[in-house]
Amino acid sequence: MSTATPDFAARRARVLEHLAKDSDGENFDGLLITDLNNVRYLTGFSGSAGTAFLATDGQTFFATDSRYAEQVKTELDPGVEVEITSNYAGSVVSAALGTRGGLVGIDDANLTVAQLAGLRDEFAALAHGIEFHSAGGHVEQARRIKDDVEVEIIARACTVADEAWTALVEAGQITAGRTERQVAADLEWHMRQAGSDGVSFDTIVGSGPNGALPHYHAGDRELASGDLVVVDFGAYVFGYASDCTRTVGIGTLGDWQREIYEVTLAAQRAGTSAVIDGTTCKDADSAAREVISDAGFGEYFGHSLGHGVGLDVHESPGLSQSSSSTLLRGDVVTVEPGIYLPGRGGVRIEDTMVVTDGAPRVLTTTSKELLEL
Amino acid sequence: MSTATPDFAARRARVLEHLAKDSDGENFDGLLITDLNNVRYLTGFSGSAGTAFLATDGQTFFATDSRYAEQVKTELDPGVEVEITSNYAGSVVSAALGTRGGLVGIDDANLTVAQLAGLRDEFAALAHGIEFHSAGGHVEQARRIKDDVEVEIIARACTVADEAWTALVEAGQITAGRTERQVAADLEWHMRQAGSDGVSFDTIVGSGPNGALPHYHAGDRELASGDLVVVDFGAYVFGYASDCTRTVGIGTLGDWQREIYEVTLAAQRAGTSAVIDGTTCKDADSAAREVISDAGFGEYFGHSLGHGVGLDVHESPGLSQSSSSTLLRGDVVTVEPGIYLPGRGGVRIEDTMVVTDGAPRVLTTTSKELLEL
Repeated sequence: MSTATPDFAARRARVLEHLAKDSDGENFDGLLITDLNNVRYLTGFSGSAGTAFLATDGQTFFATDSRYAEQVKTELDPGVEVEITSNYAGSVVSAALGTRGGLVGIDDANLTVAQLAGLRDEFAALAHGIEFHSAGGHVEQARRIKDDVEVEIIARACTVADEAWTALVEAGQITAGRTERQVAADLEWHMRQAGSDGVSFDTIVGSGPNGALPHYHAGDRELASGDLVVVDFGAYVFGYASDCTRTVGIGTLGDWQREIYEVTLAAQRAGTSAVIDGTTCKDADSAAREVISDAGFGEYFGHSLGHGVGLDVHESPGLSQSSSSTLLRGDVVTVEPGIYLPGRGGVRIEDTMVVTDGAPRVLTTTSKELLEL
Repeated sequence: MSTATPDFAARRARVLEHLAKDSDGENFDGLLITDLNNVRYLTGFSGSAGTAFLATDGQTFFATDSRYAEQVKTELDPGVEVEITSNYAGSVVSAALGTRGGLVGIDDANLTVAQLAGLRDEFAALAHGIEFHSAGGHVEQARRIKDDVEVEIIARACTVADEAWTALVEAGQITAGRTERQVAADLEWHMRQAGSDGVSFDTIVGSGPNGALPHYHAGDRELASGDLVVVDFGAYVFGYASDCTRTVGIGTLGDWQREIYEVTLAAQRAGTSAVIDGTTCKDADSAAREVISDAGFGEYFGHSLGHGVGLDVHESPGLSQSSSSTLLRGDVVTVEPGIYLPGRGGVRIEDTMVVTDGAPRVLTTTSKELLEL
């Protein structure tokens, strides 16, 4: 898959607009970018170490260490000035403001207390003064609404995961006697073959009672006839995540299992129908939650309905009762209700979808009919 | 594999001893533990969200949300009091000090500026006052020296990776015409089959010129005759990482490739011989670096020699020229020199090993003879 080059300069301009509009009267000279996905979004750098600085005068600085000296030549946006050093943050602040001082906005949700103390120490002796004040969330705000390039990459990540799931089912690899770990190994292999750069989170294969643990991983339990098996998996493509859950039965299921499956599926459909531009995230959560509560299983759905998906597999907005956000066109979110009966088993059904000007475009498209394998 | 239960109470006592001894005269009432591997080390909790508080009076508090309500019942140390809530940090501080106030030590390398501001806000109105001061590094200090249970788990993770590497080579899966991504998929599958809970970092399969990028991942390039291929991979077992790199040739290699391979291997052996209780980390780095410099390739070995391995795949101590640490018995570290010739190719050879009272016990044990596959 090839893809259009993102317009990094436009992204940086949008972040600086957010900063100018929403900085409580503070006159920032630039924004220090320490979160690596924020760095990637604004510069193209995909490595595991580095820091960027967006100066409000329009210049952008980036520092990383010698391990990435070659990589920056191919993937960094040409509009960014690079320095190779082990003192990433200090270096970009010096490059931007070392000769004149100024006020640096810090992304306080991604900078540690120790990092901030280190920066303040490093620049304390400077005659013209560099100050550091909190200015968090501006990049995340810009990242929330995906542009067309991003939506197509996430769609590709979802297709990769879909293809892997289909291959897993068709190969008969979800069957009694195999361990959860073997199923996870095969699914991850199929994702890699289909084009994934890695997994976007630890694959969950929760069989039987393990399916009642919403954030179980995959262990040595053997799948057994009569189990529900919850499989939650994601691919990474060009740095973007997918997120999908399917629940299947092994052999013939009991009535209680079919019931919680059908209720969860109905809730998932109701939640999906509520993923509309202008709907509050709380209302979307309620749309699914009410189906489960009305069926008498409300106490067994303890997590929120979904979350945003992008460079991070969990990002804004959250679809929950405590959210104050409203869904907007270009949001990419999951809808993933579940019912978890402790000691017995669970069901979760999840799709990733993008908010459009009508019904959501669902990006994970494999069948949700109950399979008894 | 079964394993002895760690003595969590002893670990917590050791951390509190560090805190008492090394707190600059401050009289802390407890330590807030936000890093998830630190939480796991002290409580047994392996989930992805939660916060612990070690009160200096000996009580331990832990909070996580409803997703983990079942999981805590099976894996949390019984000496820890649990609350299910979405306000992890606020909850444990309240539980410990809400009625009397006090001084909280924060792990400042793992708490964000925003989290600290949130905590200060939350407790600002309390009449008896709760203050938050930096007290970082105490858990990491305790974690650095591995006990016997930990060494055996890391050894198991290394064996899992070894078995996977052997299976990959014996199956003829590293061969001309296959893509880097296919090789990574197969290696990860073999690791899962051998008992890995996941990968400890993104698998690197860097072929030909991609091998000159020390932190490349695995892409769509097809392995070609005459390539050097750098493969860097790690397993996770019970939360502990392994880390190993092997470099192989495809078909027949040229003299320059054999030369950089032999120099790197000699450096790796020299570095390994220097991993001795009481040797400085800087001297260990030098032992390997001098071999490469003497052969004329010093400028092509731009990273440090190695790093500690444990619950994090990168932890203390670092083996580098800037390190001020000394190796101690029970340290588990990597030795991983490399030579990277831009545009041409690279070699890296890496083992994970534990410092003993004599020569290091090398935990990754597959052959380092140059394979031409």
